[in-house]
Amino acid sequence: MSPKITTELLKQLRQVMKNPRYVQEPVQAYIVPSGDAHQSEYIAPCDCRRAFISGFDGSAGTAIVTEQHAAMWTDGRYFLQAAHQMDSNWTLMKMGLKDTPTQEDWLVSVLPEGSKVGVDPFIIPADQWKRMSKALRSAGHDLVPVKENLIDTIWTDCPQRPCKPLITLDLSYTGVSWRDKIVALRSKMAERKVMWFVVTALDEVAWLFNLRGSDVEYNPVFFAYAVIGMNTIRLFIDGDRMMEPAVREHLQLDSTLEPEFKIQVMPYGSILSELQAVGAGLSAKEKVWLSDKASYALTEAVPKAYRYLTPYTPICIAKAVKNAAETEGMRRAHIKDAVALCELFNWLEKEVPKGTVTEIVAADKAEEFRSQQKDFVELSFATISSTGPNGAIIHYKPVPETNRTLSVNEIYLLDSGAQYKDGTTDVTRTMHFGTPSAYEKECFTYVLKGHIAVSAAIFPNGTKGHLLDSFARSALWDCGLDYLHGTGHGVGSFLNVHEGPCGISYKTFADEPLEAGMIVSDEPGYYEDGSFGIRIENVVLVIPAETKYNFKNRGSLTFEPLTLVPIQTKMIDVNLLTEKECNWVNEYHQKCREVVGAELERQGRHEALRWLLRETEPLGRAQ
Amino acid sequence: MSPKITTELLKQLRQVMKNPRYVQEPVQAYIVPSGDAHQSEYIAPCDCRRAFISGFDGSAGTAIVTEQHAAMWTDGRYFLQAAHQMDSNWTLMKMGLKDTPTQEDWLVSVLPEGSKVGVDPFIIPADQWKRMSKALRSAGHDLVPVKENLIDTIWTDCPQRPCKPLITLDLSYTGVSWRDKIVALRSKMAERKVMWFVVTALDEVAWLFNLRGSDVEYNPVFFAYAVIGMNTIRLFIDGDRMMEPAVREHLQLDSTLEPEFKIQVMPYGSILSELQAVGAGLSAKEKVWLSDKASYALTEAVPKAYRYLTPYTPICIAKAVKNAAETEGMRRAHIKDAVALCELFNWLEKEVPKGTVTEIVAADKAEEFRSQQKDFVELSFATISSTGPNGAIIHYKPVPETNRTLSVNEIYLLDSGAQYKDGTTDVTRTMHFGTPSAYEKECFTYVLKGHIAVSAAIFPNGTKGHLLDSFARSALWDCGLDYLHGTGHGVGSFLNVHEGPCGISYKTFADEPLEAGMIVSDEPGYYEDGSFGIRIENVVLVIPAETKYNFKNRGSLTFEPLTLVPIQTKMIDVNLLTEKECNWVNEYHQKCREVVGAELERQGRHEALRWLLRETEPLGRAQ
Repeated sequence: MSPKITTELLKQLRQVMKNPRYVQEPVQAYIVPSGDAHQSEYIAPCDCRRAFISGFDGSAGTAIVTEQHAAMWTDGRYFLQAAHQMDSNWTLMKMGLKDTPTQEDWLVSVLPEGSKVGVDPFIIPADQWKRMSKALRSAGHDLVPVKENLIDTIWTDCPQRPCKPLITLDLSYTGVSWRDKIVALRSKMAERKVMWFVVTALDEVAWLFNLRGSDVEYNPVFFAYAVIGMNTIRLFIDGDRMMEPAVREHLQLDSTLEPEFKIQVMPYGSILSELQAVGAGLSAKEKVWLSDKASYALTEAVPKAYRYLTPYTPICIAKAVKNAAETEGMRRAHIKDAVALCELFNWLEKEVPKGTVTEIVAADKAEEFRSQQKDFVELSFATISSTGPNGAIIHYKPVPETNRTLSVNEIYLLDSGAQYKDGTTDVTRTMHFGTPSAYEKECFTYVLKGHIAVSAAIFPNGTKGHLLDSFARSALWDCGLDYLHGTGHGVGSFLNVHEGPCGISYKTFADEPLEAGMIVSDEPGYYEDGSFGIRIENVVLVIPAETKYNFKNRGSLTFEPLTLVPIQTKMIDVNLLTEKECNWVNEYHQKCREVVGAELERQGRHEALRWLLRETEPLGRAQ
Repeated sequence: MSPKITTELLKQLRQVMKNPRYVQEPVQAYIVPSGDAHQSEYIAPCDCRRAFISGFDGSAGTAIVTEQHAAMWTDGRYFLQAAHQMDSNWTLMKMGLKDTPTQEDWLVSVLPEGSKVGVDPFIIPADQWKRMSKALRSAGHDLVPVKENLIDTIWTDCPQRPCKPLITLDLSYTGVSWRDKIVALRSKMAERKVMWFVVTALDEVAWLFNLRGSDVEYNPVFFAYAVIGMNTIRLFIDGDRMMEPAVREHLQLDSTLEPEFKIQVMPYGSILSELQAVGAGLSAKEKVWLSDKASYALTEAVPKAYRYLTPYTPICIAKAVKNAAETEGMRRAHIKDAVALCELFNWLEKEVPKGTVTEIVAADKAEEFRSQQKDFVELSFATISSTGPNGAIIHYKPVPETNRTLSVNEIYLLDSGAQYKDGTTDVTRTMHFGTPSAYEKECFTYVLKGHIAVSAAIFPNGTKGHLLDSFARSALWDCGLDYLHGTGHGVGSFLNVHEGPCGISYKTFADEPLEAGMIVSDEPGYYEDGSFGIRIENVVLVIPAETKYNFKNRGSLTFEPLTLVPIQTKMIDVNLLTEKECNWVNEYHQKCREVVGAELERQGRHEALRWLLRETEPLGRAQ
C-alpha cells in the first residue's frame, strides 16, 4: 500500500484556513476529527474527511493541520496501518505510549502565541470541545467553531450523503414496540426531571423507532435525529423513504393516535433551528437531556442553564440490555454465522495448499457463505482477512497492494461478522493450515488462556467490565507479552458492532456495570510485528451465575458464548492449559458440535459437518 | 460501644449556622469533612471535628448537617462502626452501594430552594470544592466559605494544636539530602515552567526536609507548610522546635549558604498572607504549582490564571519511589517487626487458652514486643486487634466497651504496624488458636489465593495498580464472595502508612503506574458480619521481573514481600491451592525462616524461634 500524496491538499487546506470567505479570522490550526455529526464510529463516504486529507482510513484517528505541521493521533490498533497510508507530510502520534503528547499539549508546543484553532462545531463532541478549549485557553490560544467544514471546501469530488430505504422491525425481532420504548424513555426523563431528550446517535434513533437503514456501510442505521418531549415526538429525516407504506404503517403516521405518540417528521437539516427554538422557549426548570458526546453545535443550541448532559443516554443503557426476543435473535444469528464459517474453514483447508487463495479471496468467500444464510443483510464491519505479517496489523483490511496469498507456512487471522435481521455477529479465529511452530502454539495458547479467563470469569453484580481486562492478559504478562488494545466491546442487536456503555478495557473507567442481558466481545490477542497476529474472539452474553455462596445477596454473573465456532486445536499447546481450561475447551467444542452440528445437518451441509466433528474432537492432555 | 448523643450539639450547630457573628448569611447546610488543613488522613485531636459532632471516629467520612437532617458518608470499611457510634439523629450513607446518593445529589434533594451550603475553606480540598460548588450551583444553591470553623465555635473543650520536637534524619536513612531533593524539585518545576511550588501535605514537607515529627499520632509529621521558589525556600512552622541545635544544624540555618538554599522560617499561620503576597506579585507566565487537593483557601490565594494544579505533586511521586537506603531501611524494619510478631504469636498461643487475653491486652502486648526493637518510634496506626464478630468490623479498634476475650473457638485478626526510624510496617495476620471450621479454612484459603495472585503477579512496566485489583478477588468471586475495600495502598518510608500516588484498588483510576522501588500493601480479606473477619496483608516492594519474552522492550515488574511473618498453615485448606500457590507459600515460609530466624537467633529469642520453625514447616499437599 503506498501512502496518499497530500502535499497539494495540505497546501489548499492551509490556504482556506486563512480565507476570509470561510473563516472570520485566519486559524493557525485546523482539527479534523474522525466522526460525523452523530459521533459515529463508522461513517459514510461523504464524512471520511480525515481519510481524504491524510490517506489514513482506520476507524479511529484525529488529524491536526497547522501552518507548519500535520499530525495524526491514533491508537495501537492502527500504528502500522497509519504509518503505511500517510506520506512524509504527516507525523504519527501513537496514543497510549508514554511519550506521545496529547493533542492539546502538542498544539500548545507548536502554535505561535495567541493562535486560533478551528474545528467544525457539528463534528466535534461537546465534551472534547470543552477539554480542548480549556487547555488552549489556559495557554493563551482560542478554539473557534468554523461553520463551513474546511475539508469540504477543498474536496471537489465529495460523494453525496446517502439516503437509502428503511427496514421496519416487528416485535418478533425487537421484543418491545417503539411506543413502549418512548414510554420507558419518558419515565427516565421524568425521573431526572427533564422535559426534552435529544437523540443524536444514529443507532439510538434506529433502536428507539425499531427501524434500520443502510446509509452507513456495516451499520444498519440512517441519517436522522429525534427530539422527544413529554408530549411530542419529532423525527428529523430526509428523503422520500418516509413515504414508504410499510414505514408509515410501522410508525402509525396516518393513524389517529394519542397526540403524545404522534410523530412529526421534519427535514434532517432543520434540527439546529428546531432545537434552538426549543431552547429559546424553555422556562425555569425545563431541562434538555443530551449526551455529553453530542456535537458542540447542538449542545450550544440549548442555553447552558437548561442542559442536562450525561456520558450515557438512557437509550444507550436500555439498548445494551437485550430482552428475550433480542437474545434469541442473537443466538440464531450466531448459529447461522457458525455454519458459514464451518463452510469457509473446510473450504480453506482444501484450497489453501493449492496456493490460489488470497486474503481478499478468503474474505469474499466468507461473505459468500454468510450471504447464503437466512435474513443476511450485510457484513457488520470490513473483514480483517490477514496472513503472516499482515496479521500483526491489528485492524488490517486487505487491499490489492497488500493482498497476500494464504499458505501452509503462515498463520491466518480472520476477524469478520455480519448483520442478520435477527442479530449482529463478530468473530475472530486464528488458523494454521500447515504445521504451526512451537512458538506460535505457545503464543496462541496464552491468548486462549486469556480468552477463557474472561469467558469463564464469575464476578459480582455491579462489576464494571474494565475490572476483567487484566484476566485476559495474565497468562501473556507472565511471559512478558501483551497486546495493545482493549479486550472487548459491547455488541448491538442488528445494530452497530461496537456499542456502549459496557465493554472490557483497561482504557475506560466510566463504563456502566455489566448486567445480565448485555452482550460484549471477548477478544485478547498477541501480535508480533512483521511476523504474525493471533486473536481469539467470541461474542458473549452476560448471564446470572450460580455460586456456592452469595455475599450480601448481590448475586453473581458470568458469560455464555454466543459465538459457536471451533477454536483450532492444532494451535493449542495442551501442556500449557490447566485441567479447568482444558475442560472449558472441550465443553465449548461439545456445544459447537451439538448446536451448530444440528444446523449443518438441517441445511444438508455434510462436508462442513464432517469438518466440524473433526475440529471439535476433545483435547487429550499429555499426562 | 454506645453511640454519642448529639441532639444538643446539633442544636447548637444549627444555631451558629444562622448566627451573623459567624456567617454573613445563614447557611442551610454545613459540611464537616474528615480532614485537616493539610488534607491529612490521620489528624490531630484538635482537628477531629467530624468525630466531635457525630461520634463516628473512623478515618474516613464526611458529615453534612442541615436544618432538618444530619447525614454521614463513609465507605465499606466503616459501615458497622459508624452505625454503632452514631445516634438516631444521623443517617448513614453507605458509599459504594448502588442506591446511596452522592453528597451533592442528597443536598439537592433535601435543601429548600436557593440554599447556602457552608464549609471551612481551609479544610475542603479545592477539587472537592469545585465539584460540589458546580453541582450545587446548577441546582440553584451556593457553596460558601465560612472562615470561622463552626464546629470550633461550639467545641468548648477543643484540645490545643500540637507542636512537638522534630527528628532529623541523616543520609543513612534518607539516601538523598534535602538540598538534593530541592534541586530535583526545582528541575521538575522548570520542566513544567512553574516558578513556585506550594507544599501542603504534611508528609511531603517532612520528606522534603528529611525531618520527622510527632504532631499527629501514628504519622511522624509536624504541622508546617513550605513554599519553594526557584531561588527561595520558605518553611512555615511554629514553636521553639526550630531553635533546637540539631535541627538548625540539619537545615544549615546558621551556615553561610548559597541564597537559593537558605531556608526562611516563618510562622505557620502566615502561609495564607504570604501566598497571597506571592500571588499578587506574579507576572505573566509565572505559575504556582499546587496539588489539586490543596485547600480551597490556599488555592484561591493564587489568582486562577497563575495556578498549575495536578492530582499528584512531584514530591508525592518522588517520595513513592524508594531509593536503596530507604529500601534497605524498610527491609530492616520489617525483619524487626517480624521478630516482634513471632514473639507475640508464640505468647498468644500459650496465653489464649487460659482465657485471660483480651483484644486490648493482645494489642498492648504487640506494642510491647515492637517497642523492644531498635529504632522503634511509635505505632503506625491504631492496632486492629479483633476476635470473632469484631473481626468483621473492617477498621475496628478495641475499646473497653467492645473488648472481647480471645479464645480457642474464634478467629483472631491482628492488623498492626509500627514506625521505626528506618521504616514503616503494616501487617495483618489471621489466626486460630483452636481448631478452625472447614468453612473458616475455606474462606481463609480463598483470601490467601487472592493475596498470592497479587504478590506473584507479573505485569508490564507502566501498569497501574488498579489493574491488579481483580486478581485478589478472583478466587472469592468464583464462590460468590468479595470484600468491600481496596486491595492495597502505598506505604511511606518512616512516614504515613497510607500514601499516594500508587495503590491497588478498583476504586481509583488516576493512580500513577507502578514502578520498581514503589512499596504497597497486598491485603485482600473476607468478612462475615456478626461472625468473623479474615485478612492477609503483606507490605510488598515493586521489583523488576525476569520474563521469558520482553514485548516491545517494555520490561516487567513483580512484587517482593517485605513482610516476613508466617501465614498460619492451620487455616489453609491445602486442597484448594494449586501447586504453584502451594510452592509460593513454602518459599515464602522458607524465607521467613532464614531471614527472621537469623534475627531471632541473634536476639537470643529462642522460644519465638522454635515457634517460627514450627509455623513455617512446608505444606504437604494431599495427593
